[in-house]
Amino acid sequence: MKGAILAIGNELVRGRVFNTTSFWAARELLFQGYEIQEILTVPDDLELIVLRLRDLLSRYAFCLLSGGLGPTTDDITNEAVAKALGKSLVTNEKMVHRIKEREKAQNLPHNPLRLRMARLPEGAILLTNTQAMAGYYLVLGRSLLFCLPGVPQEFRHLLKTKVIPLLKEKLPLKISIRSRLYKIFGLREADINLKLKSLEEELSGVYLGYYPVLPEIHLSVLIRAPSVEEADKLFELVDQKITKTFEPFIFGHDEDLLEAVIGKLLSKRKETLAVAESCTGGLIASRITRVPGSSNYFERGVVTYSNQAKKEILGVPEEVLVSYGAVSEPVALAMAEGVRKLAGSDYGLSVTGIAGPTGGSPEKPVGTVWIGFSCQEATVAQCFLFPGDRHLVQDYAAGTALDWLRQYLTYGTLVPRYQFTCRG
Amino acid sequence: MKGAILAIGNELVRGRVFNTTSFWAARELLFQGYEIQEILTVPDDLELIVLRLRDLLSRYAFCLLSGGLGPTTDDITNEAVAKALGKSLVTNEKMVHRIKEREKAQNLPHNPLRLRMARLPEGAILLTNTQAMAGYYLVLGRSLLFCLPGVPQEFRHLLKTKVIPLLKEKLPLKISIRSRLYKIFGLREADINLKLKSLEEELSGVYLGYYPVLPEIHLSVLIRAPSVEEADKLFELVDQKITKTFEPFIFGHDEDLLEAVIGKLLSKRKETLAVAESCTGGLIASRITRVPGSSNYFERGVVTYSNQAKKEILGVPEEVLVSYGAVSEPVALAMAEGVRKLAGSDYGLSVTGIAGPTGGSPEKPVGTVWIGFSCQEATVAQCFLFPGDRHLVQDYAAGTALDWLRQYLTYGTLVPRYQFTCRG
Repeated sequence: MKGAILAIGNELVRGRVFNTTSFWAARELLFQGYEIQEILTVPDDLELIVLRLRDLLSRYAFCLLSGGLGPTTDDITNEAVAKALGKSLVTNEKMVHRIKEREKAQNLPHNPLRLRMARLPEGAILLTNTQAMAGYYLVLGRSLLFCLPGVPQEFRHLLKTKVIPLLKEKLPLKISIRSRLYKIFGLREADINLKLKSLEEELSGVYLGYYPVLPEIHLSVLIRAPSVEEADKLFELVDQKITKTFEPFIFGHDEDLLEAVIGKLLSKRKETLAVAESCTGGLIASRITRVPGSSNYFERGVVTYSNQAKKEILGVPEEVLVSYGAVSEPVALAMAEGVRKLAGSDYGLSVTGIAGPTGGSPEKPVGTVWIGFSCQEATVAQCFLFPGDRHLVQDYAAGTALDWLRQYLTYGTLVPRYQFTCRG
Repeated sequence: MKGAILAIGNELVRGRVFNTTSFWAARELLFQGYEIQEILTVPDDLELIVLRLRDLLSRYAFCLLSGGLGPTTDDITNEAVAKALGKSLVTNEKMVHRIKEREKAQNLPHNPLRLRMARLPEGAILLTNTQAMAGYYLVLGRSLLFCLPGVPQEFRHLLKTKVIPLLKEKLPLKISIRSRLYKIFGLREADINLKLKSLEEELSGVYLGYYPVLPEIHLSVLIRAPSVEEADKLFELVDQKITKTFEPFIFGHDEDLLEAVIGKLLSKRKETLAVAESCTGGLIASRITRVPGSSNYFERGVVTYSNQAKKEILGVPEEVLVSYGAVSEPVALAMAEGVRKLAGSDYGLSVTGIAGPTGGSPEKPVGTVWIGFSCQEATVAQCFLFPGDRHLVQDYAAGTALDWLRQYLTYGTLVPRYQFTCRG
């Protein structure tokens, strides 16, 4: 079942915003067996949109259009769609109502420009009742046209919750599909690839994809088979092989987030966590608290950026800081244990390192990070040398600290080893 | 001078690799006055490539094609280009020579497949003498076709060093270009649009774009004029109008980040900052410490997620928490002042609110956030009602706290008003 994506926006063809959303959508759709054949990106140009849209609709079973649904004068998607289909624009009363409700709720003066959003091509069916920029779809003979807002969060949400279910309902596949995404922390992409090379070669209908979403590696498996039974059988085989090969490093599947996996584990055990961060600067706390309900298990975080703060808040002794330096094993240990005791929590995590670009030395180069882990059983620390720029070092450090806790909660491993463990 | 980009590769339309290179190229070209009108991404499908390439060449002065120049059987770009142009493929002896030299240098056995790379469309001129996949261009009457390797580093290098100079030589511009991006915090997209509507209508050669990168709004200005003088004059006019209209809400331009703008202001004043976060959970500290050199002005952060932590670390009195609740003016004040005094810093920021999805009440619905700001002069707090889901509420809260500090540092405004200020 083949389709196309038409992304609209001057910001895209001007390279102000990279159109990653379309490529993400192509991947998501492929997992479901819907293959994107072309991704076109065009500016807010009525004639060009009409031309390209007509062409795509004549070629493919479905078309996804994104962008240009907003209230401003450069938003011309609705007009273009109507023109391409030879339909008129009609006011959608549900949209009008929603726009007015939102203005009221947010105490905004009425802005007539916003009503432009409610002028939709005849036959448009709204995709949702809850968002301002709803998005809509049209059934055109045997093909489907989806019009989605360009705002990435809204686009992604609607694709997953509305577009894919509608495709499955209106354009059902004749083959069976199974797919799964494996989220891996702590292994190299090339090493994963090497261990699975034979799998793809030996089994037909199995498609693997490797996506470095650093510091994680995501491994996608797509199975295509003539029947549900065959797809299931093939999937079982592949799933077992992957799980057996990489197990302690697979932290989740599909939509799982490392911080949410930890949240579930802690909630189940009714245990709590506190963190003390230096070079990650609040990134670990921030990731943990992005998860709804994290107040049930996250007690506190401290970002002890200065040595003064490390002493005052965590009680790291002055002489330890002086003798060993802030980036050292005893400081990581003192921070992890300090924050755990201070918070009265079950677990304490700490990070102290050199994220760069400055601050490195021949003995402790940029990327050197000590991570500490404290629980009832023991307090331990490990040294890492992470690659990349400041942001990547911070991302690796935060990810490693979180994964360490996960490995302890799942397997009881006190000191798990990772690709960037450097000594200790 | 308008052009198009045609990117070729199954890995692109399957979403295995995100085609960011094309968007990067569009941006680079626009800065030079060469406007990309369409970016098409297609698979390794001969007929489709021929069809799209012919269409693009008939419309635009130049076309950039990327990918499919390699030695493997799925590399069919040369064949497609020849077919689209009605030319034959001829062996390029320079390429043959280079391929053989490289095989020798790398001690590789001769692989006849590699010679496929030397079969180029008649008239192709190599772009460089140093790379294996050289890339080439063709002069087609008054238009230009560039064929570049898809490997991002090679593509980028050739675009900068070869393609842009060739464009300037063969397709010199008759117009001058000026462009600027305005980054705005605290105003609505529709309101900004309303105030600038007349500008675009009255002045020809001025192009505005509105991009919600929530919680920020980015406004782009592109000026096209017949001469440098006229472009500069027009730019001055538009820049003054925009600056005057939105000034206190414009936090930066082009590549500026709010947290880096604050960093510069604090560094210049040799002042320091500490933050106390509840519902933003470390997001503010994390954004600040993403900036290199932030250890010069960021002293510490505390994520006082539990009431216990608010009392213990920040000294928020028990009776205040009990009488007013954690999400209240006195708690925001106590947190901001508490963290500032504790850290001995010049400024203290605090956030306490209900990010959701649970925890709301009729009196304090989800999205209710108190933000506190403390400096030598005073300690103040403001209540906000932010829209959206948990993440958006957190993003708005963090952005507002940071922008509040910026407005104080820039204008001395103690209590700046924002679109989501709700009372107080």
